[in-house]
Amino acid sequence: MQISKQDIEIAHKRIQKYIRKTPSIISGNETFGLRGSISLKLEHLQHSGSFKARGAFNSLLNCTVPEAGIAAASGGNHGAAVACAAHALGKKAKIFVPEISNPAKIDKIRSFGADVHVEGAAYADAAALCAEYRKQSGAIDIHPFDAIDTINGQGTVAREWAEQCPDLDTILVAVGGGGLAAGVASYYADSPTKIIAVEPYGSCSMHAALEAGEPVDVELNSIAANALGAKRCGAYPFAIAQKHIANSILVTDDSILAAQRRLWREMQLVVEPGGAAALAALISGVYKPKDGERVGILLCGGNAELLQVNNTLSAR
Amino acid sequence: MQISKQDIEIAHKRIQKYIRKTPSIISGNETFGLRGSISLKLEHLQHSGSFKARGAFNSLLNCTVPEAGIAAASGGNHGAAVACAAHALGKKAKIFVPEISNPAKIDKIRSFGADVHVEGAAYADAAALCAEYRKQSGAIDIHPFDAIDTINGQGTVAREWAEQCPDLDTILVAVGGGGLAAGVASYYADSPTKIIAVEPYGSCSMHAALEAGEPVDVELNSIAANALGAKRCGAYPFAIAQKHIANSILVTDDSILAAQRRLWREMQLVVEPGGAAALAALISGVYKPKDGERVGILLCGGNAELLQVNNTLSAR
Repeated sequence: MQISKQDIEIAHKRIQKYIRKTPSIISGNETFGLRGSISLKLEHLQHSGSFKARGAFNSLLNCTVPEAGIAAASGGNHGAAVACAAHALGKKAKIFVPEISNPAKIDKIRSFGADVHVEGAAYADAAALCAEYRKQSGAIDIHPFDAIDTINGQGTVAREWAEQCPDLDTILVAVGGGGLAAGVASYYADSPTKIIAVEPYGSCSMHAALEAGEPVDVELNSIAANALGAKRCGAYPFAIAQKHIANSILVTDDSILAAQRRLWREMQLVVEPGGAAALAALISGVYKPKDGERVGILLCGGNAELLQVNNTLSAR
Repeated sequence: MQISKQDIEIAHKRIQKYIRKTPSIISGNETFGLRGSISLKLEHLQHSGSFKARGAFNSLLNCTVPEAGIAAASGGNHGAAVACAAHALGKKAKIFVPEISNPAKIDKIRSFGADVHVEGAAYADAAALCAEYRKQSGAIDIHPFDAIDTINGQGTVAREWAEQCPDLDTILVAVGGGGLAAGVASYYADSPTKIIAVEPYGSCSMHAALEAGEPVDVELNSIAANALGAKRCGAYPFAIAQKHIANSILVTDDSILAAQRRLWREMQLVVEPGGAAALAALISGVYKPKDGERVGILLCGGNAELLQVNNTLSAR
């Protein structure tokens, strides 16, 4: 299992007219109480609110979509990304959403004109309904993380960033099912840039897999689980992470909330909890850069609840 | 009264290590229901939350600051910018804030270690107290818009943008006292790029001045008045605007709220009402670009109340 820089370059050419080239920004000295400057990749400004649009566009553009279109089970960023890509490419999308999903994310999915089917108490219920629907209708699936086209698509964020900020020593990236981290790590595989995977303690499928030597099931209990909460990381992402990820580290939910708060207070940026996890590792000191180390933080998702972010502000 | 590109270049060299080089982003087709793509300059991500940090740094770095430091009257972005620049340069700052000021902005001013003095019902009261204090203490003033160093500093945002996005036909920029618009218009004075000044109906000091042929007092009554609400535009900005601004247009508060809502929904960006005014002109159709016209929107301030932005979402 290997993804080359060339594979990602092909994905980039395929999707570039459909996605936003998201900017990066240097935080400036003292921001977040850190001595050095960091490069933040503002991928939460992507179409649909997260990096997942990249993988969705790359997958749809690299297959023949049947008349029945695409069906996906997701109450979150993947659902929004699939709906967004399908809409832009003139394809039908049906998204199966469990009842517990965040209303703002359901609204976002609907805003792209997808047919949203809300049913089932948990993600597994929505997934079962979706699978049944695909069987009946002939609609196709896009895997949120465990598919080559998905990973190649996510890797294009690294290609962009390397051009914008060519001298990063270290990149911190949040992990859910591992598609983003695998894409980024593949792109930088032959470079000196180190990739660090960051997960919440309560949603750490990659960390557990790396410890066990294979993907294993984990319990989910984190404020970021609505975006990063994969019960088990992908087989492809795991294989890539084993080879190309320098380290896997864990952060607390409190540190994620603190990172959200500081992004808003000090940079006027709103990200969702999952989008703040990588920065949490730096602010909390779980990841300590060396003097002069050039660190990149990937802000990967912006589909936040404004009220939730506002609530973090009462803490100091 | 003339500011040259060279003056702005000097300001740029002076302040560049202190400010953030804010990124620009292309919105992508269909965003905001618009046919073309627009370039958004994300200046609301600047230190202190608005472009005003540029003018504050340029002013402080181009004078001798006395032991008593700087004193300013402002419950808003200017106060935050002065506090931010003074803090970074190791100078004392005392900010006089009227009691009606937005608590989030007062918090931001305090976050830079400034001595915040809250007294007086209206801005004029705080300004009188501030003037008295300056007389007693010897502290210096930085004018929020009607000073050459301020305008030169604000103009550096145009220098950056011209490098990031060299082919803009038209730039829409919000006007309060006129310092930002004057800086941007001066930078582009000898270029084909047109500058359009945008003001709310309820806060239109520049529009009124251009109609009257001289700065005149206006009534303030707009949701954006806490940032754009100058009772009278500056004499320098007026002189520059007369020569170098292509047009002056007005937007409603409702269109500003709609622009805030769409920035959040479609780009995951939070800006304050004043920061959304330029985009409001485009979304509402008050400014109608020609086919293929390359339009730039300056998002100039991000010190929003998250609850206020959230409240805009209930409208469709």
